[in-house]
Amino acid sequence: MSNFYSTDAAMTSSYCVKCTDVPQFDALQDAAAEFLLDEKLHLRYLCNDTARCSGLTASLTSYTQQPQLPLGNAAGSSLAAPPPTPLIRKIILDYSRQQVTGETMELLFDLADAVNLTDRREAFRTGERINTTENKPVLHHLLRVPPPDAPMRPQPVHRQASINNVNRPVITTNNDTSEISNRANAAVLEQIHATRRQIEKFSMQVRSGQYKSSTGDSFKDTIVVTAGMEQLATRFVHRALTAHQAAFQASQGRRLHFLSNKDPVDSFFTTHELNPATTLVVMVLEESTIGSNELLNWKTIRHWLVTNLCKENSTLSEASILELHMVAVTSKDPQACLQLGISKNNVFPIWDWVIGRFSVCSAVGVLPLSLQYGYEVVSEFLDGAHDMDEHFFNAPLRDNIPVLLGLLGVWNSTFLGYTARAILPFSEALDAFPAYVQLVDMESNGKRVAMDGLELFHPAGELNFGEVAGNPHHPFYQLMHQGRVVPADFIGFMESPRPIELPGEAVSSHDEFMSNFFAQPDALAYGKSLVDLVQEGVPDGLREHMVFPGNRPSSSLLITRLDPFSIGQLLAMYEHRTAVQGFIWGINSFDQFGLEMGKLLAKYIRVQLAASRRTGATVQGFNQSTSSLLEAYLSHGKKGK
Amino acid sequence: MSNFYSTDAAMTSSYCVKCTDVPQFDALQDAAAEFLLDEKLHLRYLCNDTARCSGLTASLTSYTQQPQLPLGNAAGSSLAAPPPTPLIRKIILDYSRQQVTGETMELLFDLADAVNLTDRREAFRTGERINTTENKPVLHHLLRVPPPDAPMRPQPVHRQASINNVNRPVITTNNDTSEISNRANAAVLEQIHATRRQIEKFSMQVRSGQYKSSTGDSFKDTIVVTAGMEQLATRFVHRALTAHQAAFQASQGRRLHFLSNKDPVDSFFTTHELNPATTLVVMVLEESTIGSNELLNWKTIRHWLVTNLCKENSTLSEASILELHMVAVTSKDPQACLQLGISKNNVFPIWDWVIGRFSVCSAVGVLPLSLQYGYEVVSEFLDGAHDMDEHFFNAPLRDNIPVLLGLLGVWNSTFLGYTARAILPFSEALDAFPAYVQLVDMESNGKRVAMDGLELFHPAGELNFGEVAGNPHHPFYQLMHQGRVVPADFIGFMESPRPIELPGEAVSSHDEFMSNFFAQPDALAYGKSLVDLVQEGVPDGLREHMVFPGNRPSSSLLITRLDPFSIGQLLAMYEHRTAVQGFIWGINSFDQFGLEMGKLLAKYIRVQLAASRRTGATVQGFNQSTSSLLEAYLSHGKKGK
Repeated sequence: MSNFYSTDAAMTSSYCVKCTDVPQFDALQDAAAEFLLDEKLHLRYLCNDTARCSGLTASLTSYTQQPQLPLGNAAGSSLAAPPPTPLIRKIILDYSRQQVTGETMELLFDLADAVNLTDRREAFRTGERINTTENKPVLHHLLRVPPPDAPMRPQPVHRQASINNVNRPVITTNNDTSEISNRANAAVLEQIHATRRQIEKFSMQVRSGQYKSSTGDSFKDTIVVTAGMEQLATRFVHRALTAHQAAFQASQGRRLHFLSNKDPVDSFFTTHELNPATTLVVMVLEESTIGSNELLNWKTIRHWLVTNLCKENSTLSEASILELHMVAVTSKDPQACLQLGISKNNVFPIWDWVIGRFSVCSAVGVLPLSLQYGYEVVSEFLDGAHDMDEHFFNAPLRDNIPVLLGLLGVWNSTFLGYTARAILPFSEALDAFPAYVQLVDMESNGKRVAMDGLELFHPAGELNFGEVAGNPHHPFYQLMHQGRVVPADFIGFMESPRPIELPGEAVSSHDEFMSNFFAQPDALAYGKSLVDLVQEGVPDGLREHMVFPGNRPSSSLLITRLDPFSIGQLLAMYEHRTAVQGFIWGINSFDQFGLEMGKLLAKYIRVQLAASRRTGATVQGFNQSTSSLLEAYLSHGKKGK
Repeated sequence: MSNFYSTDAAMTSSYCVKCTDVPQFDALQDAAAEFLLDEKLHLRYLCNDTARCSGLTASLTSYTQQPQLPLGNAAGSSLAAPPPTPLIRKIILDYSRQQVTGETMELLFDLADAVNLTDRREAFRTGERINTTENKPVLHHLLRVPPPDAPMRPQPVHRQASINNVNRPVITTNNDTSEISNRANAAVLEQIHATRRQIEKFSMQVRSGQYKSSTGDSFKDTIVVTAGMEQLATRFVHRALTAHQAAFQASQGRRLHFLSNKDPVDSFFTTHELNPATTLVVMVLEESTIGSNELLNWKTIRHWLVTNLCKENSTLSEASILELHMVAVTSKDPQACLQLGISKNNVFPIWDWVIGRFSVCSAVGVLPLSLQYGYEVVSEFLDGAHDMDEHFFNAPLRDNIPVLLGLLGVWNSTFLGYTARAILPFSEALDAFPAYVQLVDMESNGKRVAMDGLELFHPAGELNFGEVAGNPHHPFYQLMHQGRVVPADFIGFMESPRPIELPGEAVSSHDEFMSNFFAQPDALAYGKSLVDLVQEGVPDGLREHMVFPGNRPSSSLLITRLDPFSIGQLLAMYEHRTAVQGFIWGINSFDQFGLEMGKLLAKYIRVQLAASRRTGATVQGFNQSTSSLLEAYLSHGKKGK
């Protein structure tokens, strides 16, 4: 399994320079001190400096063919398609409302050079074992490299990155796989593409009704059962696709559900409206999960399926139900799945280098999403992620959106001392996006030590939080304007996937909604002074309460439209931003040992609960507080239930 | 309308002492410095001090009658009920894993005394104009005082608060309205109870099918349209009730939806599966909303209703549709609603002292929740909130759960310097609870100045964030264990509303799930040292990555069960915690001027967009960045759409 690893593992140690090791760190600390003290560097002045502002933007332009989605045909048949028309799409990053000048950015690029950011990015791309603590490469970008024979799907045919509104071609090839020089990567790619073909075929069979349930029905609902939280990424993509017209059409009559919490209330919420006769279960089994009670939810769903189906149809056997209703996505030997009663045709591989939080482009996400929306839609999503990968791996640092976002993240958190970051998407379809960013970023960069094992001199990782924005009454805004400083990412779209123009309104609903996207960043940056309020005639005594200090940094990301392709771009953009920050800090963003201790202690608790419930064993081995809480918990169970 | 205000407005200024004005502040700063420097004060030692730990708990015990919920009858008929049985419920707060000793707590109680916390709480209770900037009283606690003639509903018949496991009676009266000495409050109460009767009657008519839609159908779906974000509180209560068996039964065949974002995607998500013939709309109209384009969503829904219903039935008039399908909750003169075509029987009052984020116990929340679950269920919820009000207003500070939570919040943020707070409910039914806490806390306490108008010496308000916890793989945990320190509230329940016991499992699913509730706080507090890892035989080079520094503070709240009553308790507990922190900081937690500026700037943007779209007016009056973004946005619209 490990034969595709680069043999150059030793190389990675030479990349272990971290930002605090290099002199550029001190220069940036000095610069930050100026920003925190010098009133002339308030954003209300910086934002009026036209020359400065026009230098602090970057954009990515992608030309794709018009997607050929199966319209109005949930079965996903491949009708003869009309000739493709070119589609231009842009992502504009405006970071002029960050507390930086052109000079600050130069210092940050110097820092990136000093810690060999470009080399690290290349080591990532070529499959070196950059996950050093687990001695693995990090290859999720390979999951979205299009197959060499990709047919009518939208393909990036030309790609440009621009800065200062000057378009410069960055990549001209459209044969991306030829770029992968690494033979090991090519071998991995073959496995990936084979799995994609397997998913394409299976999802088409299920969606067309050719693959039937144990009762002879077509499957309508899919439950994804995971032991970890990787479903947060799939959920984000799923919610976002729902707002897209063609994807929505392709999903009509189908539903997608996620079950990852062991709370029985979660199983109840997931199943209470479902018909087991038409429900397919995708079980994600990672290395660590088989054989442990991480299978609890799988057992719960199996019990629900078997009990309900056998009750209604006494001729059905448990084996046939499992064989038809249960599908596995696993990095384990398929044999382990067969022991669970899953058919060997229904086992979809992932690999031990697939990390939960970066797994949505593997079968973990691609299988359920293909069942719900059809493989074509999901391919377009993968193409978007690949487009962002190519931009990230190839564009110069100064034009590179994930690199810029990452450098600004380090600047805000490590140098200016802001601990949090608000993720504010302007689209109801992105309601699950902030939780995805929490997954990717907080689990990756919430670390204590650098790759060399030495404790960091500064806390790494930020607190990411957010909700769909757009409502000027949003509770965050009060605190962000007049309370603590929270750097924000505003994410908006030029087009609405569901436009409304009401008769008699001055603007469309989308324009109305987007007014806030353009207004809030300036309100945060400029603020409103006591002098302004005196001029407005606000009475003394009230004025002070209406002062807005301003100088609150933010980035604005304006994207052409929300569709499968741009959802893929967004996904990869935030993945790579996180990686960039990890590279600068010199940490390993790809392990997650911080999850282990809670898991271990929970096992001790479980053993105690089992013993006390069964034999009345006294609570022991815990501190006084935990013992008291456990006793209260157990004694209630005795009286009640 | 203002005749019920206390005439003692001048009094409030005497309460304007803030924590930084009193010598106790310095003593606490010194104490905090010790905690941050002295290794002997690490939680791994403090948590092993049994005497310390047993002093750092508090609990609230409430005895209620067994609720008489309409079971299995969605129409909510009032059958003769079986005789009530007493129900005992507890909330246990264990704060022994906070970085405090008994001495620290004494310093915090001294601080509370120095800033007259008890007087401020009393001024709040008796209806003084503690919202000084708007010269209003803060009366949301009156919204849940039970009517004097409340019939078979569960009533707190006895209430106890205990500390150190010694039960001490706190309140013995069960006639709560008699306690309200303030005549003004009594007048307000009459209005509140009249509105509750109006809601009870109307919701019963709708649920029984007696009140019919324009097509003669019974209403099944309710859409709540709000211009602000107050729906976050109603949404929390709604989601939580869904998991409760009796409430779930009472809601069968009905759905509740919320629309507050002007994104047309939100309207699409809200309406796309609904039948307008069976959809009732509750429009919340606050003072500021009528006449502005804050009516946009109302117009969108009106358009959707009228277009679809008239298309199918040409005899229907717009007037009859509005009269039957549209209901208003408003603090405005009812005349304004009549102008919108709403029937005068369908106008439910709120009052100008109702603050959006504290409005769920007014018609804003009670009407839609009564439509969905029946008035009886909602009354039980209100009784729970009232129970917590009584505890908060009457229990001594040392036994007072909201006071303790508030003091710990101030300690963590102002003295220890932790900027954020994780809200980690262990129940899938509380998935909307963290967003509710964000609403209540960040909008209330994210302030710049004290009540006296002077700038604070420290940032007020914390960043609240969270998700349903319980999965040991939750992405927060990595950062919380090995990254930044984030004080956490763990909230768990002794009983599951949907218990599952799978054959062959060592413990029930709820026990399995709750193992994490008991394990994570200790894992965060104790951590794991390098020495531990050496003993475990973890190889050098990996060990450093597996160290958990520990000393991460948290509180554990263990609650008997999740039901309408305890949902009400939770709601009020977090409302009052926020108020306590505001009182200590000396800020006005009840205004929200920080929302104004974004709203104003958005208006300028809207005017620009309208002019450019209609007449091609050039973008002007903005800074270079905003102009560029607006131009990109507008030029896309020209080509596309």
